[in-house]
Amino acid sequence: MRELSVKTDSKIVLLILDGLGGLPMDPSGPTELEAADAPNFDSLAARADLGLSRPVAAGVSPGSGPGHLALFGYNPLRYVVGRGVLSALGVGFELGENDLAARLNFATLDKNGRISDRRAGRIPSEKGAELVEMLNENIDLDGVEVYVIPEKEYRAVAIFRGEGLSDALADSDPQRVGLEPLPVKPTDDAPEAKRSAALANAFVEQANEILKDQHPANTVLMRGFGMHPGLPSFEEIYDLDAAAIASYPMYKGLARLAGMELLQEGEGIAGEFETLRENWDRHDFFFVHIKPPDAAGEDGDFARKAAFIEEVDAQVPGLFDLGPDALAVTGDHATPAKLKSHSWHGVPFLLSSPYTLPTAESFGERTCAGGSLGVFPAEEIMGFLMGHALKLNRYGA
Amino acid sequence: MRELSVKTDSKIVLLILDGLGGLPMDPSGPTELEAADAPNFDSLAARADLGLSRPVAAGVSPGSGPGHLALFGYNPLRYVVGRGVLSALGVGFELGENDLAARLNFATLDKNGRISDRRAGRIPSEKGAELVEMLNENIDLDGVEVYVIPEKEYRAVAIFRGEGLSDALADSDPQRVGLEPLPVKPTDDAPEAKRSAALANAFVEQANEILKDQHPANTVLMRGFGMHPGLPSFEEIYDLDAAAIASYPMYKGLARLAGMELLQEGEGIAGEFETLRENWDRHDFFFVHIKPPDAAGEDGDFARKAAFIEEVDAQVPGLFDLGPDALAVTGDHATPAKLKSHSWHGVPFLLSSPYTLPTAESFGERTCAGGSLGVFPAEEIMGFLMGHALKLNRYGA
Repeated sequence: MRELSVKTDSKIVLLILDGLGGLPMDPSGPTELEAADAPNFDSLAARADLGLSRPVAAGVSPGSGPGHLALFGYNPLRYVVGRGVLSALGVGFELGENDLAARLNFATLDKNGRISDRRAGRIPSEKGAELVEMLNENIDLDGVEVYVIPEKEYRAVAIFRGEGLSDALADSDPQRVGLEPLPVKPTDDAPEAKRSAALANAFVEQANEILKDQHPANTVLMRGFGMHPGLPSFEEIYDLDAAAIASYPMYKGLARLAGMELLQEGEGIAGEFETLRENWDRHDFFFVHIKPPDAAGEDGDFARKAAFIEEVDAQVPGLFDLGPDALAVTGDHATPAKLKSHSWHGVPFLLSSPYTLPTAESFGERTCAGGSLGVFPAEEIMGFLMGHALKLNRYGA
Repeated sequence: MRELSVKTDSKIVLLILDGLGGLPMDPSGPTELEAADAPNFDSLAARADLGLSRPVAAGVSPGSGPGHLALFGYNPLRYVVGRGVLSALGVGFELGENDLAARLNFATLDKNGRISDRRAGRIPSEKGAELVEMLNENIDLDGVEVYVIPEKEYRAVAIFRGEGLSDALADSDPQRVGLEPLPVKPTDDAPEAKRSAALANAFVEQANEILKDQHPANTVLMRGFGMHPGLPSFEEIYDLDAAAIASYPMYKGLARLAGMELLQEGEGIAGEFETLRENWDRHDFFFVHIKPPDAAGEDGDFARKAAFIEEVDAQVPGLFDLGPDALAVTGDHATPAKLKSHSWHGVPFLLSSPYTLPTAESFGERTCAGGSLGVFPAEEIMGFLMGHALKLNRYGA
């Protein structure tokens, strides 16, 4: 891709409806997308290439990290985004190449040093923020800067910034009450891992001292150590000046990992499209992330998920009027209301450009299953978009 | 494949319509193949496995080299055929394993040694041939034989034959006028690359001396250095005695790279099929290459491309009467008239044998999209053909 990519004036839009893929509640019924009254998506489909994209592997339900890495063209099995990294991105932290991030739970130690509550009685968010402030003021580690940022209730994220760190570390959280917290151990032999383990253990030791009178939140458990995955940027790979429009910090963070510029999004779904219009002349690639369909799927609310799809559909004519040269509409994974969770199912994929082989008159899982792209790895989406936008040179003589 | 292949009496035909894949001019219209009145292809399709083959990778438009390597079962990303190699094949040169080939442009140097015309005023082919003769007579390089062969106008190809050569060389052509030609530099540290660079620079130096009074063609630029890709032959991999029928030197050359015997083709499309009939008893694999559909696609001539498809269709009954055990009809890539160039789109693929799962009554991109083979890498075609010809042993107990 790096060798074939060329800079042109053409513009690409990757419109992601999070958790778009769905299932019929009954075998003969429609999926959420098929049930939605989405005439604009159908009209796009009638001039588009269709297919079903597979995020990671057969039967595997992806998290948001691998789901988006695949959409952005990175191999989700090669590039791993640790939970600590997702947490850091989720609170809007600008993660650097040398940063080591971990999730933090405030927890309760009993007088024998055993964990009696892994969530410290679910302390309120205000209390969590107050404890985080105490940690930030008092923790002092040799050779690294430390940032602790509250998430919600008993959850926070810790970032160590410095040279020579490693995320080859096992969790301190034993995942069960009645046990002592584990010391953080390196999982490989590199000196960076040993040093990072020592730093993490020193962090816990100091936190225990700082929190000793804060029962029930008198300790912290660390897990999901992760570092910046060091992705080559969109500019490096595709020679694209890419921008992201997303309303949730985690997706903004994932876009930042790929080197995209974050645009200040407007309010709600319509607001995101308004942001797209306002910035249309300033970039040649736009990632637009719409969260609500996934949340409705997670809630098992088939009708609400369909309604959100319809709300996005209403924005399509305005988007189409901008004249994108290649426009893909898909999801990062399926979130069928029937399963109330992310799933492994194929995700409906539509690519509209002047150079398509339309095979159906509507956008839905079943029409996509019969499309000209077949079932394909989501990792290939960027190749298709670059090809349809005429941004790839011929390969070989 | 090597382990599973067995020698049998069955016969395979791989019929390639160059650039077969197409697109509708309007979203609701037919492709070139769908528009063609091709009752014999349709009748074949009704007893065939159908699918869409992908030459290289998502969104990537292949050149003729990688397109054919894939058809012949070689990984087109692993085996690279440089432009110099294709040029050598294109002029019918029998490239050996030790040969280093490069494209040559006659060009104009001004009195300051800068390039004023990269094409030497597009000298006529007769003049180019005359200058090539001067080079062949006078150039003398230490330890290698040199062959210079005219292509057309200002273009020629140079081949160095000798031990210990390498194609890890950068072009001497700076691709812009007003600059001095670049010395040829090795792109890796191997002694073979250094020696080859020195030979190339000596070649240019001698050529400059020989051509100094031949303004405007008073120098040569070298680019696209390439060596024989060293493919294992069809006999080694498949135990096939393969023959090629093609009307263009480049495709004959690609077939030679795979170890196929070249058959002297008759005149035009009908002549190629006549050659097939005449040689039917002498080989068990036939690669038949039909060039015109690609040329019509490159010209953007939808109707002419469809007409060439019809002309090939008329030959199908005669071909079928020969009784091939497995017959594939496909292209090396798509060349949609709409794009006037090679493209990345799926290529219609049909495989007729007694052991198929027919899914449609016509041969077209859309029926192939719904076929039993789905969308698959072109590299797999040889496997399908070997299987359908019952030339592969069972794998494993």
